[in-house]
Amino acid sequence: MTSDSKGGAGRASGVNMWGGHFDSAPSDLMQEINASIDFDKRLYAQDIAGSRAHARMLGARGILSAEDVAAIENGLDQVLAEIEGGDFPFSRELEDIHMNVEARLTEIIGDAGKRLHTGRSRNDQVATDFRLWLRDMLDRFDGQLRDLQAALIERAEQHAETVMPGFTHLQTAQPVTFGHHLLAYVEMFGRDRGRLSDARRRLNESPLGSAALAGTSFPIDRHMTAAELGFDRPMANSLDGVSARDFALEFLGAAAICGTHLSRIAEELVIWSSAPFRFVRMSDAYTTGSSIMPQKRNPDAAELVRAKVGRIMGAQVALMTVMKGLPLAYSKDMQEDKEPTFDAVDALSLAIQAMTGMIRDLTINPDAMRAQASGGYSTATDLADWLVRVVGLPFREAHHLTGRVVRAAETRGLRLDELSAEDLAAVDARITAEAMAVLTVDASVRSRTSFGGTAPDGVRARAAEARERFL
Amino acid sequence: MTSDSKGGAGRASGVNMWGGHFDSAPSDLMQEINASIDFDKRLYAQDIAGSRAHARMLGARGILSAEDVAAIENGLDQVLAEIEGGDFPFSRELEDIHMNVEARLTEIIGDAGKRLHTGRSRNDQVATDFRLWLRDMLDRFDGQLRDLQAALIERAEQHAETVMPGFTHLQTAQPVTFGHHLLAYVEMFGRDRGRLSDARRRLNESPLGSAALAGTSFPIDRHMTAAELGFDRPMANSLDGVSARDFALEFLGAAAICGTHLSRIAEELVIWSSAPFRFVRMSDAYTTGSSIMPQKRNPDAAELVRAKVGRIMGAQVALMTVMKGLPLAYSKDMQEDKEPTFDAVDALSLAIQAMTGMIRDLTINPDAMRAQASGGYSTATDLADWLVRVVGLPFREAHHLTGRVVRAAETRGLRLDELSAEDLAAVDARITAEAMAVLTVDASVRSRTSFGGTAPDGVRARAAEARERFL
Amino acid sequence: MTSDSKGGAGRASGVNMWGGHFDSAPSDLMQEINASIDFDKRLYAQDIAGSRAHARMLGARGILSAEDVAAIENGLDQVLAEIEGGDFPFSRELEDIHMNVEARLTEIIGDAGKRLHTGRSRNDQVATDFRLWLRDMLDRFDGQLRDLQAALIERAEQHAETVMPGFTHLQTAQPVTFGHHLLAYVEMFGRDRGRLSDARRRLNESPLGSAALAGTSFPIDRHMTAAELGFDRPMANSLDGVSARDFALEFLGAAAICGTHLSRIAEELVIWSSAPFRFVRMSDAYTTGSSIMPQKRNPDAAELVRAKVGRIMGAQVALMTVMKGLPLAYSKDMQEDKEPTFDAVDALSLAIQAMTGMIRDLTINPDAMRAQASGGYSTATDLADWLVRVVGLPFREAHHLTGRVVRAAETRGLRLDELSAEDLAAVDARITAEAMAVLTVDASVRSRTSFGGTAPDGVRARAAEARERFL
Amino acid sequence: MTSDSKGGAGRASGVNMWGGHFDSAPSDLMQEINASIDFDKRLYAQDIAGSRAHARMLGARGILSAEDVAAIENGLDQVLAEIEGGDFPFSRELEDIHMNVEARLTEIIGDAGKRLHTGRSRNDQVATDFRLWLRDMLDRFDGQLRDLQAALIERAEQHAETVMPGFTHLQTAQPVTFGHHLLAYVEMFGRDRGRLSDARRRLNESPLGSAALAGTSFPIDRHMTAAELGFDRPMANSLDGVSARDFALEFLGAAAICGTHLSRIAEELVIWSSAPFRFVRMSDAYTTGSSIMPQKRNPDAAELVRAKVGRIMGAQVALMTVMKGLPLAYSKDMQEDKEPTFDAVDALSLAIQAMTGMIRDLTINPDAMRAQASGGYSTATDLADWLVRVVGLPFREAHHLTGRVVRAAETRGLRLDELSAEDLAAVDARITAEAMAVLTVDASVRSRTSFGGTAPDGVRARAAEARERFL
Repeated sequence: MTSDSKGGAGRASGVNMWGGHFDSAPSDLMQEINASIDFDKRLYAQDIAGSRAHARMLGARGILSAEDVAAIENGLDQVLAEIEGGDFPFSRELEDIHMNVEARLTEIIGDAGKRLHTGRSRNDQVATDFRLWLRDMLDRFDGQLRDLQAALIERAEQHAETVMPGFTHLQTAQPVTFGHHLLAYVEMFGRDRGRLSDARRRLNESPLGSAALAGTSFPIDRHMTAAELGFDRPMANSLDGVSARDFALEFLGAAAICGTHLSRIAEELVIWSSAPFRFVRMSDAYTTGSSIMPQKRNPDAAELVRAKVGRIMGAQVALMTVMKGLPLAYSKDMQEDKEPTFDAVDALSLAIQAMTGMIRDLTINPDAMRAQASGGYSTATDLADWLVRVVGLPFREAHHLTGRVVRAAETRGLRLDELSAEDLAAVDARITAEAMAVLTVDASVRSRTSFGGTAPDGVRARAAEARERFL
Repeated sequence: MTSDSKGGAGRASGVNMWGGHFDSAPSDLMQEINASIDFDKRLYAQDIAGSRAHARMLGARGILSAEDVAAIENGLDQVLAEIEGGDFPFSRELEDIHMNVEARLTEIIGDAGKRLHTGRSRNDQVATDFRLWLRDMLDRFDGQLRDLQAALIERAEQHAETVMPGFTHLQTAQPVTFGHHLLAYVEMFGRDRGRLSDARRRLNESPLGSAALAGTSFPIDRHMTAAELGFDRPMANSLDGVSARDFALEFLGAAAICGTHLSRIAEELVIWSSAPFRFVRMSDAYTTGSSIMPQKRNPDAAELVRAKVGRIMGAQVALMTVMKGLPLAYSKDMQEDKEPTFDAVDALSLAIQAMTGMIRDLTINPDAMRAQASGGYSTATDLADWLVRVVGLPFREAHHLTGRVVRAAETRGLRLDELSAEDLAAVDARITAEAMAVLTVDASVRSRTSFGGTAPDGVRARAAEARERFL
Repeated sequence: MTSDSKGGAGRASGVNMWGGHFDSAPSDLMQEINASIDFDKRLYAQDIAGSRAHARMLGARGILSAEDVAAIENGLDQVLAEIEGGDFPFSRELEDIHMNVEARLTEIIGDAGKRLHTGRSRNDQVATDFRLWLRDMLDRFDGQLRDLQAALIERAEQHAETVMPGFTHLQTAQPVTFGHHLLAYVEMFGRDRGRLSDARRRLNESPLGSAALAGTSFPIDRHMTAAELGFDRPMANSLDGVSARDFALEFLGAAAICGTHLSRIAEELVIWSSAPFRFVRMSDAYTTGSSIMPQKRNPDAAELVRAKVGRIMGAQVALMTVMKGLPLAYSKDMQEDKEPTFDAVDALSLAIQAMTGMIRDLTINPDAMRAQASGGYSTATDLADWLVRVVGLPFREAHHLTGRVVRAAETRGLRLDELSAEDLAAVDARITAEAMAVLTVDASVRSRTSFGGTAPDGVRARAAEARERFL
Repeated sequence: MTSDSKGGAGRASGVNMWGGHFDSAPSDLMQEINASIDFDKRLYAQDIAGSRAHARMLGARGILSAEDVAAIENGLDQVLAEIEGGDFPFSRELEDIHMNVEARLTEIIGDAGKRLHTGRSRNDQVATDFRLWLRDMLDRFDGQLRDLQAALIERAEQHAETVMPGFTHLQTAQPVTFGHHLLAYVEMFGRDRGRLSDARRRLNESPLGSAALAGTSFPIDRHMTAAELGFDRPMANSLDGVSARDFALEFLGAAAICGTHLSRIAEELVIWSSAPFRFVRMSDAYTTGSSIMPQKRNPDAAELVRAKVGRIMGAQVALMTVMKGLPLAYSKDMQEDKEPTFDAVDALSLAIQAMTGMIRDLTINPDAMRAQASGGYSTATDLADWLVRVVGLPFREAHHLTGRVVRAAETRGLRLDELSAEDLAAVDARITAEAMAVLTVDASVRSRTSFGGTAPDGVRARAAEARERFL
């Protein structure tokens, strides 16, 4: 995209839009650094939709004749068909998608095409196109994340009672259920959807009609084009209309956070797939294998998902840096807004979909999970809590006494739930046989009935609510 | 902060919380890398508020006696007074604010202090404290940004008619008014407030009661503590409760975007203050001078504001990188969440306030602005639009013809509004004397009556609406 | 690139490299996320060179027959010709450049092609290719930066005496010469070349022969392949050979710093081209114009150069984030190394070349520079220094007295060099007529004869030395 | 730091350095945003050393009298002693370390103190101080990294034969030795030292004497001060001298890369310490424990090391963003250079030292390593290589045949080295009993004798060479 007040296409195409004030052509290098058509053609549908809405409004306001509007609409139909049919002759000399479309339109319909640009500028046009495109992407992400949540909820319901070790510091801490673990991610992706939805709402204002930077003297109706394009309202300041890129930055920030969530579950899948863990087995569809190590199922898709957050963060840093310290209104620096955004959109979209597929296909190994959950004295906290609850010890003392029990077990090489009532009483007479009931991993997870806790009934209740909230 | 299942304080303080299983003390280095009290003491008020709410809930649920609750509340009052009075003996051996407060509380009130930690963990405690603290900051930022908007709107109203050059590429493009220019920033900061407000709403869920990671078997009432602390609801998943840091990342992302907006206006102030521009004069309060160059008014405050976006971006990259690929639930890496956030909060707060002061105090030089606006054939677009509107030329042809007029003026060394009717007619007979009316900068800005355009009446109307929307 | 121990191509291509242990094909999504041929084909020449060196070594060590080596070399010639001729059938099913080349080679020469991969792996192969490619780019950058330095030195020599205002805080501080200003950038780009040269030296070790990760049992000669490919030595550890990507990170870091230097001079060009400054006029080749504002010369190329640092920083953050916390040896995450690096290479290359062209073509406006330099009491420091040097005042007192002189001038609306001897003496009798000689901008720059100072003779001497050091 | 041409301290301190041209004091906010003494006092030793060198040079050149020089040197001795003794009255009103030192010096010695600033400026002074300080830090890092390498080499020598699974994708790939694995990091940290050493060499030029930006008319000897301060030479351009911050950026880039290396080994320690792996046991000094789960040894130090790369990357992004697009020469933005650098220095220093301690103290569990190495058919590649080497099959065919052997073993639930000669022959008659010898993990690692491979003799040889190269 380029400022409307210039016309890079001019010199190159021989049209000489700059009126002969340039004695020499731009350098080849300049064309290479300047042209954006190679990437901004991705906005073609939005550009055409924007032009259509603009033309209708110009007609409604009497600025264009009904005939011109009809010609423009028909011409745009043809341009759209040519692009989607792969027949459109994109030209680098015409610099960007806007000039490519307008030039072709004028070829097709003649003078009416030259009237289309009345009361607008490439500055507001590109801002409009980019917002429309990103809005579409945000809608797509909402659906993709909902699918991912659906897959997680479904697996969570299947495994509401499947005990696994809950980790802190990757050390076994307390037993949880696999379903509970998955629901944690449902919450994270729910907030990600919220962030993307807020970004959508905030970007959904129309810059169209801001013109080059100052608005226009034509009696345009910005509310009409805004409504036509599904915007909530026209932006209230024309300088802001052409200068703002916070809508893209907000998306990139939300995408990067979503990327960290994806990287966390991806990391878990990689670790859980390792031979010592063997908690899960990735499906054929998302692994690569080896001709000579048949057990090898490289979790390539999980690793790539884990990596994608880098790309997205990089895109955000890139655009943030570009925008830093730019005076109003339009500067050519802002042409650097699209490629990072496109790259982040593609990376995030692939990552979400790949994760959804992996979750759906995942084979769970409950035995391996349970075996690890039972080790590590993971129910020691349960004994301490029993001492507080039943015996009435202060929390800090209960913990101290529990430590002695654990060491008694450790000394004899036993798990906590392998200690006998006598063993327990030998440590402290207040630890009665009743305490034994809290030492199994199943009892432990069942006992965590606080709201949001890992008790299977709670997991099922939260899963049901998550269906309501998110699906 | 550290996982509740450990107790770094133990060894160091001789309390031996880890039950003698460690043969040697942590290295000095480990203490240095591990202790967080030097920075997390900033959360003291939130930590005490959280403990108070937790204690009341434990009382209401019969887990603590009414006497214990009363003792805890009184003890917390004393701790708070000691900290605010500067008398509190912060101890690095007690690692963090949570253990510092609890240890002192227990010193003051005895055993009841040891019962306070029932049904919670440092993992959910720190998450609660940090959310409460950040929520307070978000409220403060909302007020600060409102003040900045108020200053901008007030100056915009004063200068609704003050003509300045509108720039694209820092080249004079079309005249705008200074008020119009300032209102662009009112819009940006309005969206920034929206982002911070959304972040506040999203973070306003209570992790308290998530306990270490799995919830608890005590019959706690998370809805009660949530309500007591002003949270909208308890978080629905305990693993998420202790693992999530997206609330901080979302703030940092929004803060960084706000930082770019501040950097843009700061850059403009620096450029406008330069000798060749001289559009504005910064007040004594926000400049530094020179003993020997009395005209020198270094715009230090503007430069520092411009730079602060770097700090905030750095903080965001720092925490994003920390969170990348962390398995659930709590990992010690997450202790690195606070310092970048604190630093970004301080940087943003200073920057907003400094900008507000600069805007309020700014002396405007309308003559210099007008002189620059009148140069550069800035009203050429107005002539072209007139040719479309009045003569009925297609837009692209009108532009071509205008180019010839401009060159005629340029050849004779005149501004556009210095051309006579004859001069205009000599270029093309269709350019009548009526066209002369559109060639002054005042006529130009008056003509941009499209919604959001720079016409002074529009600027006043938008400023009035902005008062309604934002103040 | 993918781990050698797998073979994604297998399932898809029907070759079934994984021996039938996968029941179902990879998902389409997996292919999309997994295949790298779309971007890594850029490494084709290096891949072929590496294979050629490997084959020769295998021949020299008796692992391959001379016939096989000859067949492989001829086959690789043909593959190279096909790729460079645009006839090569790149296949996404074959995943990456390595498998594409090897598969085609085997088609051409039969069994000998299957023997080429003896004693190596795709893990060391891709590391070798990427290092070779980046080494070529580093050599190219060295030449490009030398060209840029040459352009700057040439202009500096032309303008060794052209007085311009030296700015601090974008406020006029002291006069300098334009040549002096340009030489500052020669130093910066010289250090950039040093950084890139250091990066080249450090990356110039051969990973080839590291095999999958552990080395190989074949009696290969890694020193021979290293020498053949121009590496200084083989890398000393096979795990490091396949795991290291710091060579790319180091390049990205150096590139980003170079990008900041480019952004600084680009910013200056944008400001200097603005109407109020008008210090320089960009050539037609690097600006874009406007059909209706003929004076408008938008400094698009400078703005794009200014923006490119964002892209490069983004690439660095992206790859840094990818590498954070990756266990040894190869992980699929590392496939994300190439695209950011390619993007940064392209951005930097365009930016350097565009800047070189802009500097070469730049039209300087010495009158505008001098006019601004003479304002702002820019020689006040010279008077203060004279008071120290000649009158013997302590520095701080001299500065105070100078302040009074400046105010005397300011009160009367004069420049410092317009004050008469009487005017000076009226402020303080110690200021004799002799002092008048230091108050002109020419005297000021001539007096700064300290090494590295702005005195024209010094500028010429430094420029001559810079020719020796850099060109 | 602030531009020398101003003097923020003036108004606040009543000294009125700006000569009365400011009517009102700076706002409190301005003081808060402007003062740097809170952090730049860290440069006190370098500031004093720089002043001492400057004074001596002024004496040698006859600009100061011998008496003045002696007074200054004695005064600086006293200032240094006061600061190091904790008695120095740092003043925020005096803004920065330079004015604090000079003001106190003048208090102590009178007028001679006012002469010290002759021929220099705070702009070159702060650049000098910062370079000197960072140079000291680079020297310290070199020693710290050498210690880390020494610890790694020592452990590598102890475990040159300790077999562990070599991973790709965290899947067992081929056996390696633990010593070999550790030596990979010795290489990485060796390159890190190289980068820091290159940064030191490049920064070791003296900006002193650049003065405010243009050099000075005093007959100073910049080569003398450069030599006195251990710089290789004076910087060749005064504008560059005060504008350049690439020396800090280069350090930050190198530090961030080093941080990724630390994060990788830290991640491995976390994973290896997990219950399913149990490859290593961290020492008491670098873990935290739990009062009730005595087996729990949270690898807090490793996690914090892993996280520190975020801080360092954040610092780099922060300063890079600050420097983007800054015109020459000094801008106040550049005051933001120190805090990120200080923070990164502290983070890196702690991380290196903590890692060194962890490596030294680490308890290795060879049995767990060997058990995992023997699983997963990790020697399948060895069989394939044997088929190529001994039987003469093409590599790709050998791999296919090996796959059949692995599946035969898998079907019968055996490890590869548990297959009998008959079992092997049954798959293919060409697989003779001789092949059995290559199927054990010990044979596998012994066979990898290629340079840089994992064969124990090679590991020992490389370790010996590493001692030569690095210690």
